[in-house]
Amino acid sequence: VKAEDRFVERLRAALAAGTGGMLVGPGDDAAVVERAAGPLVATTDALVESVDFLPEEDPERLGRRAVAVNLSDLAAMGARPEFFLLTIAFPESKGEGFPLAVARGAAARGEDFGARLAGGDLSRAREVFVCVALWGRPEAKPILRSGGRAGDLLFVSGWPGQAAAGLTLARRPAGRELHGLDELSEADAARLLAAYRDPDPRVPLGLDLARHELASAAIDVSDGLGIDAGRLARASGVRAVLERDRLPLSPALITFARLAGRDAVEMAIGGGDDYELLFSVPPSDAARVEERSQELGVPVRRIGFLEPGEGAFLLEGSSRRPVHDAGFDHFGTAR
Amino acid sequence: VKAEDRFVERLRAALAAGTGGMLVGPGDDAAVVERAAGPLVATTDALVESVDFLPEEDPERLGRRAVAVNLSDLAAMGARPEFFLLTIAFPESKGEGFPLAVARGAAARGEDFGARLAGGDLSRAREVFVCVALWGRPEAKPILRSGGRAGDLLFVSGWPGQAAAGLTLARRPAGRELHGLDELSEADAARLLAAYRDPDPRVPLGLDLARHELASAAIDVSDGLGIDAGRLARASGVRAVLERDRLPLSPALITFARLAGRDAVEMAIGGGDDYELLFSVPPSDAARVEERSQELGVPVRRIGFLEPGEGAFLLEGSSRRPVHDAGFDHFGTAR
Repeated sequence: VKAEDRFVERLRAALAAGTGGMLVGPGDDAAVVERAAGPLVATTDALVESVDFLPEEDPERLGRRAVAVNLSDLAAMGARPEFFLLTIAFPESKGEGFPLAVARGAAARGEDFGARLAGGDLSRAREVFVCVALWGRPEAKPILRSGGRAGDLLFVSGWPGQAAAGLTLARRPAGRELHGLDELSEADAARLLAAYRDPDPRVPLGLDLARHELASAAIDVSDGLGIDAGRLARASGVRAVLERDRLPLSPALITFARLAGRDAVEMAIGGGDDYELLFSVPPSDAARVEERSQELGVPVRRIGFLEPGEGAFLLEGSSRRPVHDAGFDHFGTAR
Repeated sequence: VKAEDRFVERLRAALAAGTGGMLVGPGDDAAVVERAAGPLVATTDALVESVDFLPEEDPERLGRRAVAVNLSDLAAMGARPEFFLLTIAFPESKGEGFPLAVARGAAARGEDFGARLAGGDLSRAREVFVCVALWGRPEAKPILRSGGRAGDLLFVSGWPGQAAAGLTLARRPAGRELHGLDELSEADAARLLAAYRDPDPRVPLGLDLARHELASAAIDVSDGLGIDAGRLARASGVRAVLERDRLPLSPALITFARLAGRDAVEMAIGGGDDYELLFSVPPSDAARVEERSQELGVPVRRIGFLEPGEGAFLLEGSSRRPVHDAGFDHFGTAR
């Protein structure tokens, strides 16, 4: 029996029982799943070693994160996740247990949001590469990036910038403290690290916004609030204005920034890896969004508005500066 | 505008016009496509630099091949391709034109078989990695690996082993001839190279077999006829017997093997990268398969049978030897 076949056998044994619409799971040439008629919402996102995660990342956590970043894309569309495929390329030196641990993490994170692992592919590579393709169905009408209108208010979930702080912490050499950061409490450090390593995709929020038709446009914040606000603005043909004083800065981020000699606002605007939802809402629905946030227990903050024009700008007092280039560009210089 | 956004704009301009069920194409958080109710057949397969293709591979051809190997999986299920997602990770040194060329090749190869590029992801990486997720719908009942029965006959399409010969030719240092191979005609060399670089997925054959319910089981031959016959046998709970004298050896492969001092049968059994269909057929339908092959203009040859037992064996005269380990294992030693 070949290693790839052994992997499939172990994977099948590790997957949760119950078929739930899965007619053919891992182990054939393709997966076969049942689905109702109507639109299918599908996304793919890959994590590459040394670009999207650190070389010694724990494989189970890597699998969780690979699925989470895809769940975040579906959340931004207001779509309910159904199934995903998982490709893992890795060096032989990692051992046969490595892809199984990645798959276990991925399957567990998918199950949290109703997405089942239906199949995948393994390959050799010099560096680790994990690619997920995830699909589902729109809860109501899909929420696009392009539906924003001048006058709409901008909201963001959670605490942008925490993941960027967590990445700095994750990069610490093992057993050593970063200069100035020894005063950070364990609880704050754990919260920031978790924001980077194990993001919580905003699937319940995205589904709720779609169900109640509250968001005119939405995007998941992966490259930084500034860049992604610029993308929503561009797709909608408007300008996004973020109000400095409204940005949700978590106490942990504020403490981190003070100790590290960094600016918490800059981290929130340009940090990346947040996987929060940024969405626009007609003013008449703003109060309803705040109600829904309470009801769901998902923190949501109004941080700005859309107006005629283009780009994304940060409003500080009465001055504005462009922030649509203020984040992580996978194709330009790193942050 | 970020490089990733420029890519999406250029890609949208390059894609064929007409929406054909695509409600939201590349450029949002996820793709949205229409589809009818019923089973969805989905697969993913990745190509990794230096493992699945040579470092200097032409990007457009790389895109074509990445889609073709996925189309081959759907063909083996008897499923009609509909849409695919494309992830490209590449070093910055390749330039911004590189992913566009990969995507152009992928889109063109997909269109050949009715599969549209719906979205994807770009990432930086040290080595090139191309991952495709493709889905479609079963033409009738999906053909599984597990439906073969003792007594069924085994058929294969095309000319296994040609791709392995093509790989040897592709590895030639530029401008230099391989020892002994200078007598190979240009036409033969071109045919073998094409079998490796630009495989022809057997989608029409797979759909036809499903429509007429002729195949009891099928698998696409990617790791070698021996390994993949072993997989079909294992899934079906039987033994596969390949008859040496029945193997379809192309004149180009026979010439190549003679000049290179290799054994054409070994190359056909253990070569890999063929992307042909291996399928089992109840004896009562064998004549019908040969008729369909004529009708479709797709070469198909009866090469063996299934019997009680396990493994895959090559029958040479009256002796048999195991061949279920005789190919390329992505997780063991290379061929």
